[in-house]
Amino acid sequence: MPTTDATFEDMRDILKSAPGPDNDAHATAMARNAELTKPDGSLGRLEELVGWFAAWQGKDPLQLERPRVAIFVANHGVAAPGAASGGVSAFPQDVTTQMVANFQSGGAAINQLCTVADAELRVYEMGLDQPTADFTTDAAMSEGDCARAMAYGMMAVEDGVDVLCLGEMGIGNTTSAAALSCALFGGKPSDWVGPGTGVDAAGVARKAAAVTAAMELHGAACGDPLEALRRVGGLELAAIAGAVLAARMARAPVILDGFACCAAAAVLHRLDPSALDHCIVGHRSVEPGHALLLDAIGKTPVLDLGLRLGEASGAATALLVLRAAIACHMGMATFAEAGVSQS
Amino acid sequence: MPTTDATFEDMRDILKSAPGPDNDAHATAMARNAELTKPDGSLGRLEELVGWFAAWQGKDPLQLERPRVAIFVANHGVAAPGAASGGVSAFPQDVTTQMVANFQSGGAAINQLCTVADAELRVYEMGLDQPTADFTTDAAMSEGDCARAMAYGMMAVEDGVDVLCLGEMGIGNTTSAAALSCALFGGKPSDWVGPGTGVDAAGVARKAAAVTAAMELHGAACGDPLEALRRVGGLELAAIAGAVLAARMARAPVILDGFACCAAAAVLHRLDPSALDHCIVGHRSVEPGHALLLDAIGKTPVLDLGLRLGEASGAATALLVLRAAIACHMGMATFAEAGVSQS
Repeated sequence: MPTTDATFEDMRDILKSAPGPDNDAHATAMARNAELTKPDGSLGRLEELVGWFAAWQGKDPLQLERPRVAIFVANHGVAAPGAASGGVSAFPQDVTTQMVANFQSGGAAINQLCTVADAELRVYEMGLDQPTADFTTDAAMSEGDCARAMAYGMMAVEDGVDVLCLGEMGIGNTTSAAALSCALFGGKPSDWVGPGTGVDAAGVARKAAAVTAAMELHGAACGDPLEALRRVGGLELAAIAGAVLAARMARAPVILDGFACCAAAAVLHRLDPSALDHCIVGHRSVEPGHALLLDAIGKTPVLDLGLRLGEASGAATALLVLRAAIACHMGMATFAEAGVSQS
Repeated sequence: MPTTDATFEDMRDILKSAPGPDNDAHATAMARNAELTKPDGSLGRLEELVGWFAAWQGKDPLQLERPRVAIFVANHGVAAPGAASGGVSAFPQDVTTQMVANFQSGGAAINQLCTVADAELRVYEMGLDQPTADFTTDAAMSEGDCARAMAYGMMAVEDGVDVLCLGEMGIGNTTSAAALSCALFGGKPSDWVGPGTGVDAAGVARKAAAVTAAMELHGAACGDPLEALRRVGGLELAAIAGAVLAARMARAPVILDGFACCAAAAVLHRLDPSALDHCIVGHRSVEPGHALLLDAIGKTPVLDLGLRLGEASGAATALLVLRAAIACHMGMATFAEAGVSQS
């Protein structure tokens, strides 16, 4: 994996060499599924999750022993004190650092969700005192900084991690995610912005104005998805894109979280529409841009619980459903074993 | 609680004395929720679940230590060999007994889901060699049999059970659930029937014909919901209604499962529209009658995973989400504790 001298070309090369699904592992899992003591198809999405997991993990028997939740944390120039936008978040930027301390001491929502899901939590702090540039007036990052952030994200994929839940925390990042989504998929800036952590109508208008300014400044240069990422994205979003790519190479299935996380992953989808086939989306956020983004990347989320917290909370909750699916698949008796008549 | 000499009058009396929500416990939980380190409302349905749970459990701190999954199992005359319907299930009636053995040996889906959710499983077998009468030609049960089945269901609510997931298993019971729903809420028989375990179009037509015959025979007498239950319901459906009622008395919040389970609970809703306020519905089944029934009883399910298995599978999967909600509520730091700035 590239590290300090990473370039966008490296990332494109990795994506080109990404493995496809393991059709044999999928067929093996589906053959077992058909023998289990339930009406065929009656576990619905749980059965689909098993097939997806088998195809991308490629193991028989399936293994779900070491799930990891990785949260990338960064600050954004667009949300810095005195930024041209005049404020895009309901919270001050200091909250990014304060929340890292909360993650470390076990007090955040994601800590509790990881305990329930028996998942390991890793928090990747990305120079919180060095935010990206304000994308309404400059490119957020240089190519080098962006590619290095992607390479940093790749480190979340270590040997033995058998499913990776991705998330983020960063005051201002729903504005960055809106700009990135708009750059990747078009539409009006106002389609992609929303209340985020809870800004009022004036705040939403400031977010839309920031995205509009970003599109005027960078829009013409955003035909290349990686260029869009560096110009209007963020360090944590670049890291998530890198982690998704590394997980594909390592055959580690991925659970994506909400709007910001999916916007980051969508960069890869724009480079190659099959680049996210090893990913599911854990939940549908109430942040309005997320529904549009889900349509754009062709994903149906596992859960729809009205969440809008980020920090991988929806992905970790969906991990519970994946655990349920894999447990049924691994533990159920077959019709023959149980002496149950088939229809 | 009434037992061997139970009557419908006993059940009506119990329902009249049912406690309401504990508004103080609800307010205490919501006050804590507002202080936790997250944007207000950002955990969406998880926060709503906490409020609901607090209101009906009435404890501070909340307690989720001993969840129980209770499955009631019975056979139906309408699905018996040689019944007038000519066959309403994709599986022979022997499968009911075979599945009880599968539950007992740990091979069914619900066994695996209980392991993941750390829930106790109880399977209540209700005289599988004595099915109800075929409701297309007779009343399924006498009042005494039906009231005794309700009383039997009440036994699932024991001291210390702090949440109760309810489900059923019984070949033919989606036809009984369709007849019961039609008796309670009207509409056309064909609106309420569907493929169940997987019957073909001819099978669905036989189910609709069975419901039509039942409505012609019993419809006029079904103005009383308990009369509808005894005439076209089943023993396991009566037991579920009893368990829901007993849980209300014991302040044990309930997670309902799919179509058959909700049809049973709907009997109480027709007696008193507030009778199911201590219940949530775990999931939306793909059995088409379930969506209609959810509208009729005014419930939004927690999950929508395309399940149609029964045996409390959707309720047990939703228990995972409830565990996530309660864990966040109990374990998260407040803004003051974590030193995080509030908006």
